[in-house]
Amino acid sequence: MVDLTHLMENEVFMAFASYTTIVLSKMMFMSTATAFYRLTRKVFANPEDCATFGKGEIAKKYLRTDDRVERVRRAHLNDLENIVPFLGIGLLYSLSAPDLSTAILHFRLFVGARIYHTIAYLIPLPQPNRALAFFLGYGVTLSMAYRLLRSRLYL
Amino acid sequence: MVDLTHLMENEVFMAFASYTTIVLSKMMFMSTATAFYRLTRKVFANPEDCATFGKGEIAKKYLRTDDRVERVRRAHLNDLENIVPFLGIGLLYSLSAPDLSTAILHFRLFVGARIYHTIAYLIPLPQPNRALAFFLGYGVTLSMAYRLLRSRLYL
Amino acid sequence: MVDLTHLMENEVFMAFASYTTIVLSKMMFMSTATAFYRLTRKVFANPEDCATFGKGEIAKKYLRTDDRVERVRRAHLNDLENIVPFLGIGLLYSLSAPDLSTAILHFRLFVGARIYHTIAYLIPLPQPNRALAFFLGYGVTLSMAYRLLRSRLYL
Repeated sequence: MVDLTHLMENEVFMAFASYTTIVLSKMMFMSTATAFYRLTRKVFANPEDCATFGKGEIAKKYLRTDDRVERVRRAHLNDLENIVPFLGIGLLYSLSAPDLSTAILHFRLFVGARIYHTIAYLIPLPQPNRALAFFLGYGVTLSMAYRLLRSRLYL
Repeated sequence: MVDLTHLMENEVFMAFASYTTIVLSKMMFMSTATAFYRLTRKVFANPEDCATFGKGEIAKKYLRTDDRVERVRRAHLNDLENIVPFLGIGLLYSLSAPDLSTAILHFRLFVGARIYHTIAYLIPLPQPNRALAFFLGYGVTLSMAYRLLRSRLYL
Repeated sequence: MVDLTHLMENEVFMAFASYTTIVLSKMMFMSTATAFYRLTRKVFANPEDCATFGKGEIAKKYLRTDDRVERVRRAHLNDLENIVPFLGIGLLYSLSAPDLSTAILHFRLFVGARIYHTIAYLIPLPQPNRALAFFLGYGVTLSMAYRLLRSRLYL
């Protein structure tokens, strides 16, 4: 069996691993937030959820939508749409031997932007707070994609 | 050209590759299930789909939603929301030289939980079947994230 | 610090990196398309967006849905549902030492199919253009999954 720990001795890769784990854990928190609002506000998407979690004869009336729940779900979907490209492009970028401090700057900006995006979406803060957070994270990912395609294009 | 097969000689990584391929294939099956219900129940989201697959003069009436189709779509989105973190965190965890049997236990529990989640969503089974399957998969991913951040944090 | 550039000297991996970066950048373009239609058509999902981007006293009336925006969002979600499996399965496939020309054929077909899928969805082209593009990309991913499970199964 080959020892793979050397990959984790690469500092850029370790930094990528840490920031990715943090941003993915943040995204997973959105599921809990959705579940929390669904249970406290009694807003369900499935009849079987009403029956168990919305006790009472008229449970079916809890089969509805709610502004708060929909807001969390939109924030969650936006996370997915932006973290998936970061995951793929960031992994390949980390393996393309970038400068350590440049790489860490990219990762920090992205993770910061996504956390701020979530805060701006859930409070909600007035626009353009959320839009700026979105475009910062977007720009960071594009910057890594550009670096990758410029130096390692192979079609 | 460098030979990369040594990465695939690492047993943890091979196990991760196998379980990931299985759980992603399962997720892809959801697309087929959606297509199946859309075609058999004549429920479409786009006018051009009605025109081709819902033959007849009054095809436009098939531009509607359907409980069954929406249920499959919710299960699919839930898969996405949970399998993406598993993909990222699990990959990094696999490269961080974990104990083989612990790693395989994590992968098996996650894949089992997601398959059971799909079954519980599509039949549907009464709650809390689906909720427990969800939280088992969620906990497995968090456990890998915790292991990763504790041993390899680099910010 | 270990030098990881040798991974990027592997031709299959470099090709995977290039095609993945392209297809993820294409997916990110969908966010811009959604934002473009939301702003030009004044169709918002959040009250705070109306207040800032849909100026006027009766901004609240812009809190609505729109066929064009929903179409882009469906195309975006379909991208997510298909590119995530490609990302995971394709990465593992690339590391399993496949034949270079076979691998590049897979990547090219997938990226071509997804770009054509987006065009067919957004114009929109009559069916079965979009359905064929979808199933081509789907088949490519399944073909890589099959290759991976046949040669490297470890459960």
